Formats: sequence, structure tokens, C-alpha cells
Amino acid sequence: MTINPAPTAARHPDRYFDPDPSVRGVARALYGATAHLPLVCPHGHVDPRLLADEHASLGSPADLFIIPDHYVVRMLYSQGVAMEALGIPTRNGEPVETEHRKIWRLFCEHFHLFRGSPTGMWIADELATIFGIAAPLTEANADATFDQISATLATPDLRPRALFERFNVEVLCTTDAATDPLAHHQAIHASGWSGRVLPTFRPDTVINLNTPGWAAHLEALSQTSGIDVGDYASFIRALEQRRAFFKEMGAAATDHAAQTPATGMLSPAEADAIFQRARKGDATAEDAARFTGHMLMEMARMSIEDGLVMQLHPGSLRNHNEAIFQRFGGDRGADIPIAVDFTRGLQPLLNRYGNDPRLTLILFTLDETTYGRELAPLAGHYPCLRLGPPWWFYDSLNGMRRYFDTVVETAGIYNTAGFNDDTRAFLSIPARHDLWRRAAANWLAGLVIRHIIDEAEAADMAHELAYGLGKRAYKLK
Amino acid sequence: MTINPAPTAARHPDRYFDPDPSVRGVARALYGATAHLPLVCPHGHVDPRLLADEHASLGSPADLFIIPDHYVVRMLYSQGVAMEALGIPTRNGEPVETEHRKIWRLFCEHFHLFRGSPTGMWIADELATIFGIAAPLTEANADATFDQISATLATPDLRPRALFERFNVEVLCTTDAATDPLAHHQAIHASGWSGRVLPTFRPDTVINLNTPGWAAHLEALSQTSGIDVGDYASFIRALEQRRAFFKEMGAAATDHAAQTPATGMLSPAEADAIFQRARKGDATAEDAARFTGHMLMEMARMSIEDGLVMQLHPGSLRNHNEAIFQRFGGDRGADIPIAVDFTRGLQPLLNRYGNDPRLTLILFTLDETTYGRELAPLAGHYPCLRLGPPWWFYDSLNGMRRYFDTVVETAGIYNTAGFNDDTRAFLSIPARHDLWRRAAANWLAGLVIRHIIDEAEAADMAHELAYGLGKRAYKLK
Amino acid sequence: MTINPAPTAARHPDRYFDPDPSVRGVARALYGATAHLPLVCPHGHVDPRLLADEHASLGSPADLFIIPDHYVVRMLYSQGVAMEALGIPTRNGEPVETEHRKIWRLFCEHFHLFRGSPTGMWIADELATIFGIAAPLTEANADATFDQISATLATPDLRPRALFERFNVEVLCTTDAATDPLAHHQAIHASGWSGRVLPTFRPDTVINLNTPGWAAHLEALSQTSGIDVGDYASFIRALEQRRAFFKEMGAAATDHAAQTPATGMLSPAEADAIFQRARKGDATAEDAARFTGHMLMEMARMSIEDGLVMQLHPGSLRNHNEAIFQRFGGDRGADIPIAVDFTRGLQPLLNRYGNDPRLTLILFTLDETTYGRELAPLAGHYPCLRLGPPWWFYDSLNGMRRYFDTVVETAGIYNTAGFNDDTRAFLSIPARHDLWRRAAANWLAGLVIRHIIDEAEAADMAHELAYGLGKRAYKLK
Repeated sequence: MTINPAPTAARHPDRYFDPDPSVRGVARALYGATAHLPLVCPHGHVDPRLLADEHASLGSPADLFIIPDHYVVRMLYSQGVAMEALGIPTRNGEPVETEHRKIWRLFCEHFHLFRGSPTGMWIADELATIFGIAAPLTEANADATFDQISATLATPDLRPRALFERFNVEVLCTTDAATDPLAHHQAIHASGWSGRVLPTFRPDTVINLNTPGWAAHLEALSQTSGIDVGDYASFIRALEQRRAFFKEMGAAATDHAAQTPATGMLSPAEADAIFQRARKGDATAEDAARFTGHMLMEMARMSIEDGLVMQLHPGSLRNHNEAIFQRFGGDRGADIPIAVDFTRGLQPLLNRYGNDPRLTLILFTLDETTYGRELAPLAGHYPCLRLGPPWWFYDSLNGMRRYFDTVVETAGIYNTAGFNDDTRAFLSIPARHDLWRRAAANWLAGLVIRHIIDEAEAADMAHELAYGLGKRAYKLK
Repeated sequence: MTINPAPTAARHPDRYFDPDPSVRGVARALYGATAHLPLVCPHGHVDPRLLADEHASLGSPADLFIIPDHYVVRMLYSQGVAMEALGIPTRNGEPVETEHRKIWRLFCEHFHLFRGSPTGMWIADELATIFGIAAPLTEANADATFDQISATLATPDLRPRALFERFNVEVLCTTDAATDPLAHHQAIHASGWSGRVLPTFRPDTVINLNTPGWAAHLEALSQTSGIDVGDYASFIRALEQRRAFFKEMGAAATDHAAQTPATGMLSPAEADAIFQRARKGDATAEDAARFTGHMLMEMARMSIEDGLVMQLHPGSLRNHNEAIFQRFGGDRGADIPIAVDFTRGLQPLLNRYGNDPRLTLILFTLDETTYGRELAPLAGHYPCLRLGPPWWFYDSLNGMRRYFDTVVETAGIYNTAGFNDDTRAFLSIPARHDLWRRAAANWLAGLVIRHIIDEAEAADMAHELAYGLGKRAYKLK
Repeated sequence: MTINPAPTAARHPDRYFDPDPSVRGVARALYGATAHLPLVCPHGHVDPRLLADEHASLGSPADLFIIPDHYVVRMLYSQGVAMEALGIPTRNGEPVETEHRKIWRLFCEHFHLFRGSPTGMWIADELATIFGIAAPLTEANADATFDQISATLATPDLRPRALFERFNVEVLCTTDAATDPLAHHQAIHASGWSGRVLPTFRPDTVINLNTPGWAAHLEALSQTSGIDVGDYASFIRALEQRRAFFKEMGAAATDHAAQTPATGMLSPAEADAIFQRARKGDATAEDAARFTGHMLMEMARMSIEDGLVMQLHPGSLRNHNEAIFQRFGGDRGADIPIAVDFTRGLQPLLNRYGNDPRLTLILFTLDETTYGRELAPLAGHYPCLRLGPPWWFYDSLNGMRRYFDTVVETAGIYNTAGFNDDTRAFLSIPARHDLWRRAAANWLAGLVIRHIIDEAEAADMAHELAYGLGKRAYKLK
């Protein structure tokens, strides 16, 4: 038996803290005061179905840790493991591996790849905390760990609603297509369960005209909104109708991806001309880019009117690997960042709406060079702006350190939006918040020991970073 | 009474040093040997009027710490404080808050925003050192601190000339428009006071054709130079005349802002054609960019001829927030950096003049990615180049660390230009130099403890960084 | 006598390690286990002539440390030392300094310029280890050190083959033009010496149509390949012939420079049209860029067919200083990096060949912003990709730290290619590997102390970084 339930490196009480004893001492105290605060989760990708059905299960160890997690899949694929062998479903239905024990073995054989990665840290944390597995996964312990995890997953304690409560989640926001009827959210409300799960309005598939299958998404918009979307004006009305519905269902925010942060106003006639070209399948790449840039401005206008917080995260070139996209679809780890220009890109939007006290616009980046050069200077001036936490490839110990070190001197912490876990891996939520709270405590301890802030200030800032800032930025009561 | 004049965090003798005791010990020794060196201030924005009149006053606490400081104003504005409530004058004369005690209260209520920022560190240092105020500013101590600062400001010790001497300023360079008759500098000379205050020639408003009010600035150039500037040739003559006057008045350097570092030679005919279009108000954005790129080359030529050190700091998109610019004018915290390309941008200038031993060109950046990629490689090759210190958003503890860590391995310290405070806040000058000297000592201590340099080398380098490099780069005797 | 052969800072057993005693202790242990591993040198620029002749000499101290080393030359030139005074030969044969003792004195006088630079560290290491010179070079010890180094260089121990064995080099790959007949490699084989020295196929001068003297290089290609290269089809055949020859001579890899990472397929007709324009001297800059982008794809295709590992390092604007290039030629320290876009640039190549398990493509960058934004995300997905180590301006203590901190969280260490010394300075090879092994041990120790990995994992990773990864990435048996 290679599994050892004793505490290990993954659960060391001082994990992630700087080596210096003076920093470590202060960090431990600051972290200790925030470790048990409720989790505010204003941005993420948990499937609301898990929480709609009180008997829902997290599935097998492979369902839980491997198949849906593009961080895991991408690393294994990069080292020559076939997507098929990992059970990733093909779009054309060609068969893939279905024996989850075999998939788990493959994962265990390659677990060393994740050494030093945040994915490795989160998984080690989950294995130790939830499943009592302290040793790193290896080929040798693959079967034993598969069995142990499977057995634990079968217990009622591992049902999503039980975990939601055990994790002390105060509020969890999901991400939902503009065309989603929010049936799972309605079921959660109807069930009388007290967990607070809110939808987030994400209209990318109808706003970005080059979305694969755009016409079908547009048709779905007509259907869910009850508005026959035949031109730009009715498109706007349908979006307004959906936003109102999402807000009624408790939504706090909207969420927008765009390849670049470019914004710019079109006249209604220009917007309609592009829209009509898109309906005929004739929209060019430039049409799509200009339309997205215009619609981001429209989204800001609507946010001012309805009070939904607006989130924008540009800079990912989606589906970089066309063969993988053709065979397995999106979200398989092949979205690759590009350099972006927030300063010039957002200028039209900020000039039109950036001084309006009713707007909150939270920005995320995949281009860390923009932290110090563009985002912190912008957020340290425009009243509408808040900076989202380090995200995607950067929600890691070093990513957080770079964020604190580069953003705060210019923008302060009060122009940030705290933390969010941005995850579809429900089980990883506590580990992600724990990493953030430790990273924040450690960074603040460094400021205390350097005599830049005092301990009382640090304690207040630690609380804000762990809890207060996220809640206020998203206007969550 | 919430004010405590005892030493606090802001004045801790080890402030800003790394936590490790061995680094801290060496840093303390290195800093100790440079802490009392005279301050060389080759680039800044202090108003020479303050030093022209021996009875000049620094004004109220709000005049001193808030109204003219765009770092302070931008942070407060970003958190919803109106510019009007801070007493920022409007361009159209609409009334704003005039009661400085109320402005001070607003500042104290929001002082926590500056936690972890260099502005927060400088102000804490000034409050402790000059005014004996050790506690952080809060709503509760707003009135008491206002009174205490006001009382101190009324004493003769707080007159600018007295402070200049107390601060041990060896030389202070101001920044002055090309069209400035330098009356205050003349008054300083005439007064017989021994303080060394030198003008710096900054011709941006006539060189950058898209400067708001360019025609009026051109007219002023004709008047101060006594040359009727009607074409490109006379424009050049007028600039040469002004440079000669500035040099006669003691100027060591010129200073140039440009949106990008692009340079390129125009023929005299092209230059004149653009100049004539500008006079008619017909110059395009491209005209302006090409003219600036050409004039930077002309400035290098003139520097070779007259020996003035040339400074260039591209990369700020000025007045990003048009509504703020319309209502309150420039320098209100709405200048936002953009990515720049020094490698290709400066190639024409460097190929024409970069090997000439008579030229010194000091480069500043707002795009930290250029430190390692472009600036250090360029400065480690071209004899004319020196790198200015971290600047504007980056004259902070982390900004300095990144600068040392990224620049020195490639360019060495001897291709840098030491430190300058770049400030219009006269009272903050010692705090800024102190931060630099501490950051430099701390960085050098890390090299000593890692056995990369020895203590004698570190001591020599600390002296150079604190004093020698700046003086030599600007050819200050 | 100012030379002291006792251990000094440059050879302190803890050099380069973090100050914290706990990190230092673990780093020392990890380093200790890798310090004596054989040196795998899969990418470098050592002249194979040195190893072809068993009596070859490294020349004078100036030949060894100054004249051929563009890191040294550029730093001295940047501080006003003339290239002529350093003995850099002119292209037109105009005389330069020939007295090597004078050149050495100039170097010693300016040795302080290298404080804190990797060049300074390597040289200090070589002086201490090979020549028993522990004190920094100064004007005062110039003559004594010149004599001591000269005397040592005259001993048989300092012959290149003796050093190769003493350095414990397991394999050394040189870099050789596609047109090179590899006479020195043939001589090494013929000599029966057991040292393993492999050629690397570098076809830049024929692939990049804007190479100065392209037509002559093309003519040389015809001659060495025995294929009359008159069109695109024969050009491809000649390259295939040369690759086969290099492979027969033991080559493991190809090596490609390009100003940008842009790739894209041309039709054979388009490729031939550009090729014919180049033969007539009519190719435009755009022609050359498109042809290079196409040929990189052809090189990937050939690598799939013949198994040679492909290396690509874009992003240097070569010969930035035209006057220096005209007078002294290339590789004089005037190649300056530019920003690059790997994400979009490599997409055509990766979409065509990136999922093929036969391809290994090792990427190097001079734009550190691409580590986290582009390279780690790409290498953490595409099975063909491996990331080369920090390189050129970044093979330094800080460069390595930034590389580890930015790359590994996303790509893991197993998508990196270990270390290579990339040097033409044969004598510096051990010092460079030592720096890497120390930097790696130190970085791993930080992970151990932060409880991110355990000591057994760290020991395994240290071995991989020092030895295993480089060997496997280059398919060296």
C-alpha cells in the first residue's frame, strides 16, 4: 500500500510562504485570520447541473480530475499522450477510451509532469484534503488511489451540495450563454436549497460574429428571448431582454471574451450592415472585429442602465490547433495568448463611459506585460475600472507574486477585484482560494517586514483581498 | 491626539531592505555610506519660482501634498472622489473646492488607498521627517495633522531655499519650455544665493506639431528668440538660438517626450512642407509623427554641436481621458503608457549619430519589457547611450528591483545614468533619493551575499549609483 | 604581485545561491549531486578546428578572452573603447592593434564594467579555476595576469582536447553552415580521438535571401552538394543532400535564425518565383520574409523525414549599427532584440506539422515576455515543442530565475530542453554549465522549502535539468 494519509508537503501548514522566518511568521498570522472566511466565487465555470440535483455525483476519478480539465489534458498531450487515450470525446463520435481506470493509470504514470505547476499543487491539495491521499500519484499507486477515490466519491459527503456547504461557499457565480434558459438555476431556486448560485450573462457566441455556428446561436437567441432577431435593432432588444432575465435570476455580472480589447462605436446603420452580412454568411474578419468592438461599448451602456458588472478578458487566440479543434472541439488546452493593447483599445469605451459612476468594468489579461504598463495605470485613474486577479495560466504562486508586485504600487489593492477561482473543477475551489490567501498573506508579510505597511494595515488588506474586494467589486450583498 | 512623533515604520532604519539578516546587514552598511551624500537632481519639475523668491512659501497642506500631485489625484479619482472636491482648477473657471482643510480631510479619509504605493511611502517619510507625524493619516487625525503641518509650513525652516540647503541638494535641474525666458532662473542668479538651479531645454510644445495650441507656442518662440519663425529653416535657427540661451543660463541637458521612439530623417524640403501644413492647421497625425521623428534627429545633431545632454522618454499616450482633459487640462493622472519599439525606432538616429563620442542620449521608458529586450542591449553597445532610472510609475521599490535585475546583467551599471527624482513635489526629493539609495544598497547586498561581487566593489557601485553616475552622465562638474 | 590563487568570491562554494540558510542548504545538496555530471553541449559555436588538431592552441589572453567575444567587445565599445584598440580586424584590412599585451591592459582597466554581469562571472570563474587568478582584473595587475595566463596557455594541459576531457564534455555540437564540407569534423573522426564532436546544420545564409553575399553562398551550395542549384526544386534537393551528409557526419540537429517567427506555406510556383527574383538580385524584403517563413516549414517537413531536431531562434535585428558592420562585419555585439509573436507566427507550421510525433522543434527567444504569454502555453500543448534555455542576453542568474519562474508553472520542466552553453568561448563552457546547475538547484530548493515539491522530486528534477532533458530533447544517445 503506497498511500499514506499523514500530512505531507502538499498540506504543510507553511506551504507557499517565503523561506525567511520573519516573513513566514507574519504570513502565518495573516493567513490564519483569513483561512476560514467564506469563499466568494464571483467568476467560474462550475456546471450548475451539479447543484440543481441534490443527488448529483462528481463521477469517476477520471471524470473528476482528467477528462474535463484542459490544464491536465494539455500537459499530457504535450508529452505525447493521445487525447483518445484520455477519454476525450470526439466530435464525430469515433470511439475513445472508456475504461476510466486505464485513463487514471495513464495520468498517474505522467503525474510527475505537473511538478511545480499550480495544477500539481491543487490536485495534491485535493487528494490530501478530500481523499486522504498524501503521496504523489505514481504508476505504482494508480490502482490503489483509483479505488480509494472511487470509494470516497460514492459517499454522500462527496455530493456537490454537501461539498458546497463544507467548502463554506458564500456565493458561486456560474457562466452561462446568453441563450441559456437557466433551467438548472431555476431548479436550484425551486428546490428550496439555501446555497447561493448565480448565473453570469455571457453573450460571446452571438456577439462575436465569427463564432463557429453563429447562425444557430442567433436562432437560439430569438427563441429564448421571444424576439424575432432579424436586424441589429432587434438583436439589441433581444440582448436587453436576456440581461433583464439573467438579472431577475440573480445575475451580478456579464462576462465577455474578445480576441483583442479594441473598442469603437459604429453608427446603427453600420452595425446593421455588418449584422446583415453576418446573417448571409458574408461577414469578414474585420467586420467581426469591428462588431465585437462596438458591442463591447453597447454592453457597457447596458451595464450602466441595468447595473450588471461587466467583465472583459481579451487576448486568447482560441483553438490554435485546428486538427484538435476539428476532432475534439474547443476547451482542450489549445487556446494560446497574444499580446494586447488595452491603452488604445479601450480608449473609445472609456471615453464614452469610463467616468460614469454606475459602471464597473473588471479587466483580466493573459499578457502580463500589461499589468504595469497599461492596466494598473488605467485602473489607478478611471473610476469604473477594477483589475481581476491573475487568471488562467497565471493563477499560480508566481503569477500572484508578479501581479501583486506589478499592480499594487500603481493601482493599490482597492482598484483590484479580489480573487476568483475561474474554474470548472468544483473540487479545486478551496485549494485555489487557499493558494490566493496564502500568496496574499505572504506578499503582505514581505511589506510588513520591509516596514512599508504595519501589521494592522496588513491584516485589513489580507481580509480585503480574501473576501471584501471581490464582494464589493461584483456588488454582491 | 492621534499624532505620535516617535519613529515609526515609515522611518525604520531598515526600511525597504530584504528580510534576510545577512542581506540586511550588508545593505545597512552600504546604505550608511551613501545616505548623506549630496543630492544630484539632474531631471525634475520643481517650479523655479519657489527658489527665485527667498520668501516663497509651499502653501497649505493641500497645496503641498494634493492639488499639484497627479499621483495623488489619480488614485483618489479612481475611487470616485471628484476632481472638483480636491480643488483641481477647471479650465473654464467653474468654481471648485477652495477650503483646503476640507480637501485635506478627504485625502486623510482615503489615505489607505496608498498602502503599498511609493506615493504612500514618500508621504509617510515626509510627514515623519519634516512634520513629526508618525501615524498614518486617517479621518480621525485629519484636523490635527492639517493644523500641525500648517504651523510647520509657516516657519522659516520650511521656506524652499532653507529646505534646499537642509536637503543637501548639490544641483537641481528644472524643466523649462523652449519658449521660457527663464526669468526665475535669472532671478536666482541675480539674488546671489549659492543654490545651484539649472534650466533644462524642453521644446516639445513646438516640436510636436499636434500639441494643443501649437501655433501660439510657435508665436512665443518667435518672440523669445527674436527670430521670425516662418519656415523650417528659421524654426531650426530659433531652436538653436534658444539652446544657446539655455546653455548660457547653465543648462546641462535637453528633454524630449514623444509618443513613440520612432526617428527618421526628412529632407529640408519635406520638413518645410510639413511645417507649412502645420502652420495652416493642415498637418495630419502622420505629419506630426514624422516631424517629431525628424526633429529628434536634429536635436541629436545640435547636442553634438553644443554639448547639451539629450534626454528622451517616449511611450506615454497623453490625456487618455478626454473629458478630464477638457475640464481640467493635462497632468491630472490620465497619461497612460503604451508598448514601444526602441530597437527599430531609434535605428536611424543611432546610425547617424550613435557612434559620435560627443553625444550623450539618456533614454527613459514606461514599457518595462524594453529594459532587457531593447534598452540594455542598445546601451551595452552604443557609446552615446545611457539608461535613465526607473521613472514615473516605476520609481518604486519593485520598479527599482526589476530595473537592476533586468538592466545590469546586460548593460552594467556604468551605462546607466544614476538616479533622478523627476518630481514637481519639492518636499519629496529626499524621500525619493533615500528610496533609491536603499534599493540600490539592498540590490548590491544581494550580489555580495551571492558572491557575485565583493564588498569593496559593492561600496564603489553604491557610491556611483547614489552620486557619481548621475553627475557624469549629465556632465555636471 | 597582486594575484592571489586562494579561493575567492568567484569560487565560493555557495555562490549564486539565495541568502536564506534553509534554501542554501537544500541548494547545496542538490547542486552537489549534479556538479560532476558530464557536460552535454547540444548547441554552441566552438570552432571545430580547435579539436581537429591535437596541437591546436587557444592563443594569447586577448585571443582567448577579448577579440572573439562579442559580449566583451560590446561592453568596452559602449564605454568609448575603440574596436581598433581591441584588435578587432577590419574588413578592408586597415591595421588595428596587434600587441595583445596592450589589448589586455585595456581590458583590465575596464574590467569593473562587467560587475554583476554573467560575462564577469564566467571570466572570474575561468581565471580562478584554470589560471589560479583570484583577484578581479585591474590596471595594476594587467601585466602580471597577462604573463600568468600566457604561461599557463603554453602548457599541454591547456590544449583544447585536454580541456575537453578535463571538462568532462560528453558531447559537443558545433554550428556549421549548410555549405560547410565539415573538414574539421572529418579530421576529428579520422584522428581516432574519442571526443564526441557533432556538426549542426545551419542553412541561414542560403535560406534567408537577404543575407549579404547570398549569391555566393548559393554557389557554394551547388559546389558542396554537387547539385546545380538553378531553381527552387534543385535548391530543395541540395538542402536535402546536405542534411543527409550532416546526418551521416553525426549531426543531431538543425539550427535556424529568422528575424521573426512568422511561417507560412508558399506554392512551389510562388517559391520558385521568389527564388528566381533573388537570383537576379530583385527579391524584396517581403519576398525574403515570406521565403524564410516558407523554408522554416520545409525544414520542419525534412526534420520529420530525417529525424534531425529543429532549432529556431527568431527575434534578433542583426547588425543594428551599420557603421560597425561596414567596418568590422557581423557578430560584434550590435545584434539587438525585437518583440516577436510566436502565437500567430508559428501557427501555420504547427498546424501542418505540430501534432506529428516525429518532429522536435526547440524554440529560443530574445523577448522574455513570450515565456509566459506564448512559449510556455504553446510548449505545454504541442507535442513537438520544447523550450530552449535562457539564451544570449539571458543566460544569467536573473535570466534563469525568470525563465524557471515564468515557464515551469505552465509548461513543466519536461517540455524544456535542459541547458546549452551557446558559446564560442570554449573555455567558458564549464562556468556556464555550473551557473545553470547552481541556478536550477537554487530554484528547486526554493520549491522544496515552500513545500511545493519534496526533496526526492527536486533531486530527480535537478538531474534532468543538468543532464537528462538536454540529452533527450536532442535525441543524443
